[in-house]
Amino acid sequence: MDPQLFQYLQSFLTERRRGLFKEVLEERTRFITVVTEDVYQLHNTSAVMRSCDVFGIQDLHVIEEKLGKKVDREIAMGSQKWVDIYRHKNVVECMNELRTKGYKIVATTPHGNVTALDSFEINEPVALFFGAEKEGISQEVLDQADVRLKIPMFGFTESLNISVSAAIILQNLVSQLRNSELNWKLSEEEKKALEVQWTCKSIKRVDEIISRYEEEKNS
Amino acid sequence: MDPQLFQYLQSFLTERRRGLFKEVLEERTRFITVVTEDVYQLHNTSAVMRSCDVFGIQDLHVIEEKLGKKVDREIAMGSQKWVDIYRHKNVVECMNELRTKGYKIVATTPHGNVTALDSFEINEPVALFFGAEKEGISQEVLDQADVRLKIPMFGFTESLNISVSAAIILQNLVSQLRNSELNWKLSEEEKKALEVQWTCKSIKRVDEIISRYEEEKNS
Repeated sequence: MDPQLFQYLQSFLTERRRGLFKEVLEERTRFITVVTEDVYQLHNTSAVMRSCDVFGIQDLHVIEEKLGKKVDREIAMGSQKWVDIYRHKNVVECMNELRTKGYKIVATTPHGNVTALDSFEINEPVALFFGAEKEGISQEVLDQADVRLKIPMFGFTESLNISVSAAIILQNLVSQLRNSELNWKLSEEEKKALEVQWTCKSIKRVDEIISRYEEEKNS
Repeated sequence: MDPQLFQYLQSFLTERRRGLFKEVLEERTRFITVVTEDVYQLHNTSAVMRSCDVFGIQDLHVIEEKLGKKVDREIAMGSQKWVDIYRHKNVVECMNELRTKGYKIVATTPHGNVTALDSFEINEPVALFFGAEKEGISQEVLDQADVRLKIPMFGFTESLNISVSAAIILQNLVSQLRNSELNWKLSEEEKKALEVQWTCKSIKRVDEIISRYEEEKNS
């Protein structure tokens, strides 16, 4: 975006809001990304999205082999505006795409003799896969994952809600990132692109404003 | 309970179930206890209860100054059978009672310059207070707490659902306990009492069975 136009658009925001964007961008990461597989209950996807925003995860991948649906706005609490959602129709393609981008595939599962969250150390970019409520994670992901990760559980109940599992794992890994020397922050280009995107999303009828600006510039 | 009667009742359970009781009892703790303050949404209390079971927390205190309600069985997933619920009508009395029992009062709150979860070390018994959805934790608890604890957040959304917050904090603290030298396990007496309680809860019409046993014994 033309820097002058960007500056003009920014004048529509309060100083507080512009400052908030800068602050949040400093905390954003693509070192961790989240993938949900055909989660049936809308409020679960929305809660995962909210946790992504809260813990600074910029990208959420949603696999909808069986389902297509919208976000529950009340639970997402506006986070659908600030987290980038990528929709996929096929889990294997999604895995391949993320691998190509340099992510290790981490399958979260409550079952089996797998790595416990307490002993998992993050040292390269990870894509965290979360399965559907009842079915759990798909066999393809289990088979092809680089790591299988579980939250140790000690009671009668042998499962946690997907939104709870995601929040626990994200909180733990993000805390690890922040205490590490890893280069987990967004690049300056990425920050700039998001700042433009968030600025546009914050202005009502931004398209009209941009058109008018272009017209006046060209007249 | 008369040991012979207990043995008789245990014969109604499968060996697998009896073994599961022993396993779960080894992981149970009262070193951490959870208190929820007037949580409005049933599914939130039920989800907290489920997390208590999952992370081995035996006691859940529910403050119902304004409300009284039942558990959402689907979300609790049976955990209401295995976690002890204590109902309180007054938050200050509840705090005093827990202090008398040796607990430090920990107020969880997203706001203010408070201890971050990452830097909180558990070294004595704690009662974790969680507030209602909108109102948050009550002023009385904030004022009188020994520690104010927060989960660091980095996004636009400034709050997490109470059941998510509880799960994150429990997972973290329970993991700390298990890596510590602290004496967090139940005593043998406590384990025995719970084993009796759980055995009775697992048998349909256990009262009739006990009555018949007593009759036959006395005849």
